[in-house]
Amino acid sequence: MTTVIPAFNAVNGARRIVTLPEPFGMRQGGVLHGVQVACETWGRLGADSSNTLLLFTGLSPSAHAASSPADPTPGWWEEMVGPGKPIDTGRFHVICVNSLGSCFGSTGPASVNPDTGRAYGLKFPTLTVEDIAAAARQALQVLGIPRVQAVVGASLGGMSALAYALLFPAEVEAAVCISSATHSEPFSIAIRSLQRELIRRDPEWRGGEYPPGQGPREGMRLARKLGMLSYRSAREWAERFGRERAKEGNEAFGIEFEVESYLESRARSFIGGFDANSYLYLSRAMDLFDVAEHGGTVDKALRRLRLKRAQVVGVETDILFPLHQQQHLADSLKRAGVDTQFVSLPSKQGHDSFLVDMQRFRPVVGDFLAAL
Amino acid sequence: MTTVIPAFNAVNGARRIVTLPEPFGMRQGGVLHGVQVACETWGRLGADSSNTLLLFTGLSPSAHAASSPADPTPGWWEEMVGPGKPIDTGRFHVICVNSLGSCFGSTGPASVNPDTGRAYGLKFPTLTVEDIAAAARQALQVLGIPRVQAVVGASLGGMSALAYALLFPAEVEAAVCISSATHSEPFSIAIRSLQRELIRRDPEWRGGEYPPGQGPREGMRLARKLGMLSYRSAREWAERFGRERAKEGNEAFGIEFEVESYLESRARSFIGGFDANSYLYLSRAMDLFDVAEHGGTVDKALRRLRLKRAQVVGVETDILFPLHQQQHLADSLKRAGVDTQFVSLPSKQGHDSFLVDMQRFRPVVGDFLAAL
Repeated sequence: MTTVIPAFNAVNGARRIVTLPEPFGMRQGGVLHGVQVACETWGRLGADSSNTLLLFTGLSPSAHAASSPADPTPGWWEEMVGPGKPIDTGRFHVICVNSLGSCFGSTGPASVNPDTGRAYGLKFPTLTVEDIAAAARQALQVLGIPRVQAVVGASLGGMSALAYALLFPAEVEAAVCISSATHSEPFSIAIRSLQRELIRRDPEWRGGEYPPGQGPREGMRLARKLGMLSYRSAREWAERFGRERAKEGNEAFGIEFEVESYLESRARSFIGGFDANSYLYLSRAMDLFDVAEHGGTVDKALRRLRLKRAQVVGVETDILFPLHQQQHLADSLKRAGVDTQFVSLPSKQGHDSFLVDMQRFRPVVGDFLAAL
Repeated sequence: MTTVIPAFNAVNGARRIVTLPEPFGMRQGGVLHGVQVACETWGRLGADSSNTLLLFTGLSPSAHAASSPADPTPGWWEEMVGPGKPIDTGRFHVICVNSLGSCFGSTGPASVNPDTGRAYGLKFPTLTVEDIAAAARQALQVLGIPRVQAVVGASLGGMSALAYALLFPAEVEAAVCISSATHSEPFSIAIRSLQRELIRRDPEWRGGEYPPGQGPREGMRLARKLGMLSYRSAREWAERFGRERAKEGNEAFGIEFEVESYLESRARSFIGGFDANSYLYLSRAMDLFDVAEHGGTVDKALRRLRLKRAQVVGVETDILFPLHQQQHLADSLKRAGVDTQFVSLPSKQGHDSFLVDMQRFRPVVGDFLAAL
C-alpha cells in the first residue's frame, strides 16, 4: 500500500516504512490491511533493548523530528533531538512515528484502499488516538523493540503518549506529556469543528473524493488561519505586531494590518503539504480522545498505568490546551501513584511554545529525561 | 434615502429616523448625502435638556435597546434599560442610536446611494468609529439636545462612546465603557479579518454587489460561528457542554458534540438579519479605531476629555477585548485627570457577559449612574 499523493512520497533517506501484521483492527470498528507506519530513528538500540524513547507528533508533522546523516534537513524538533540534546540520541534510541491516519508515509485516507485500488477517502474507518498508539506499538514489535523507556509527545502527540501508556502499561517506564490533556474541552472541539467545516465547505473537497494531489486548498488555507489563532497567543502578537500596517494589499477589506499579512503567509505555506482528509481524521481523533473511557473516570483509568515517572508540561498562554488541563492531568497522575513532575511555563507563544520557546523547553525536558 | 433590504424596514413603532444636515463628511474621506440615523428614546428630556444618556450599541444590535409602549418587544439590553432599572428611564432621557454603517434604519452600505439609485455596496466610504460618533451627535443636534449627561456603550459601543467624548469633549459629562478598549489588538484584528474573509470568499457576496435581501448567507453563518468562539469563553462552555454528544447529525465530520450543535443553531439564527456589507464596514471600523490618533499617544489624546467621571468595566474571561485593555483604559483616564472607576468582573461568559450576566452588570452600572 502506498500513499497516493506524489509529494508525500518524496525521497527521504532516513524514513523507514514498517508494514504491520494483518489485519489491523480499529478501535471504533473497521479493519485495515497492510498498514504501514513511517518512522525515523536516531541513536542505537542497546543490547538489552531498554533504551528506546518513542516520540509522537502533533497533528501535522512527519516522523522527521531531527536531522541525521541520511537526511540532513532540519526536523520539526531539531533543537530538542540529537546527540547531547535534551532528547539525547547519544543515550536514547529515539524513534519518531508518523501517526496512523496522517499522510507522510503512514497509512491514512490518502493511501490506496486495497479493496478498491483507490484512495480510502472517507472509507477510511473512524480514527482514534488509541489507533495511533496501537499502530506505533505494532511497528515497534516488528522492529523487535519490546518496551520503551520513555514515551514523549506534545499536543496530539501527548494524547498519543498517554494512550500508549494506558494501552500497554507494562511496556512503558516514563512519559512526557507537553501541552496536552486527558480529553478535549468544548472550546477546542469548537475550533476544530469550524476548521473541518471550512475544509468540507470548499467545493474542491468533493465529499472527500478529490483527485490525488488536489483537494480543498482554499478550505485548508482558511482552516490553517483559524488554527493559527488557536496556536499562538494574543500577548505574543500584541508585542510582535502591535498596530503595524501591512505593505501589501489594496483589495477591499483585504490585508491592512501586518498581523493579517502574517496569517496569510503562514496559511499559504501550509496548504499543499497536508492531505485534507488526513486533517479531518486526525482533527476529529483529538476531539474523541478521552482518558476516562479507559476506566469510567480519569482517575480510575490512570490506575492502569505502571509508569515509574511522568512529566507534564503546560504553558500559561495556551488557549487550545489551557494550563488547567495539564494541572488536572498531573494531579490525576499523582493520585494514581505516579511520581509526576508538573511544570508550568510562562512562554508567550501559546500552544505552539514547545516548537519555538526552546530556551524554556530544552532544560525542562532535558533535566527530566537525564534523571531517568 | 431608504435602506434597500425590506426586512430592515420592518414597522417599528418606537423607531425614529433623523435626517442629518447636508453633507456628512467622513473621517477618512468621502461624503454622504441625506444621512439618516435611526434611534429610539425612553424617558423625558428635562426642561434644561441636561438629562440625556446616549447609548451606543455593539456591532450587531439595532437601536431597540428596550421595550416601550410603542414597541413592546424586548430590546437587546432589556434588563438594563427601563423605569427603575440601572439605566433608569424615570430619570434619564435615554437615546440609543443605530450606528452609521449598520442596517437597521441608519444609512449604511445597504442604503440607496442617491448618486446611482442603487445600494452603496462597496461604494460606501471607509467607516470609522469616529463617524459613528459624529453621526449620533448630529442626530442629537437635530433633536435639539445640546449635550449628554452620560454616554454609554459596550464593545464597539464603548469605542463609539470614547470617540464621542473625544470629539465633543464639552458636551459630555460622564462615560461608561464596557468590555471595550482604546484600540484593537492584533488578535482581535485577526479574528475579524478571518470573519471578513469568510464572508468575502462566499461566491454569493459577489464583490459586495449582491441583490437586496440576498447575499453571502453561508459566509455570514461561518463568520458568526467564528464570532461565537471569541464572544464566549472556554470556561463557560466546559461547564455548560463538557463532552455531551449531540442528538442530531450523521454527516461525515459533521455535528457530533453538543457544542457543535449549539454553534450551528446560534449561527443560523443570525444570518439573514444582518447585511453582510454592513458587517464588513463595522468590523473594519473596530480594527481601525485608535484613541492615540487623537493626540499622538493615548495619554495625550485623553487629555482632551472634560469628563467629570468615567466608569470602565471589563471581564476576566474576555478574549476579544481582554481585561488588560480595560485596565489600560482606566489607568490612562486616571492619568488624564478623569475621576475613573475600574471594575473587573469574574463573569464566565467572556466578551458577551454584558448581555447575559446581568446580575453582575446591573448593580455595577446602576450604582455608577445613580451617583452622577
